Amino acid sequence: MKAKVYVTIQQNVLDPQGSAAEKSLQSLGFNEVGKVRIGKFIEIELDTNDRNEAEKRVKEMCEKLLVNVEVEDYRFELEG
Amino acid sequence: MKAKVYVTIQQNVLDPQGSAAEKSLQSLGFNEVGKVRIGKFIEIELDTNDRNEAEKRVKEMCEKLLVNVEVEDYRFELEG
Repeated sequence: MKAKVYVTIQQNVLDPQGSAAEKSLQSLGFNEVGKVRIGKFIEIELDTNDRNEAEKRVKEMCEKLLVNVEVEDYRFELEG
Repeated sequence: MKAKVYVTIQQNVLDPQGSAAEKSLQSLGFNEVGKVRIGKFIEIELDTNDRNEAEKRVKEMCEKLLVNVEVEDYRFELEG
């Protein structure tokens, strides 16, 4: 099974990397660009077939290590 | 309109951040964890209603600035 985790910076938290990309895109002539936010896309291979258990475990992985829940949000999906 | 861009490190390219997360998860007792890869999840607000044009422009943004096409792959979707 595979987990795909999407980590985003919370709306009220500054995202300097996103702001830098936004300014660079605009100065390259992409004038249609508004806000840019840069988060993480994490893929995890899981050696299990128990979907309910995987759901619980991936949530734990996110909250213990992968996500800083003070300033980031996350969601994930399981495949396979 | 909004673009969601998923940037992943190519399969044959080393991903030290992913390897570090993999080892940390395993040492925290997540023994079911296999390979971990960490990429980027980029959200871009676009001030346009022309979907075909947006498709073309986001591809350009990726190849000019957001993605290092030598070592990364990307895909994106448009919403709204």
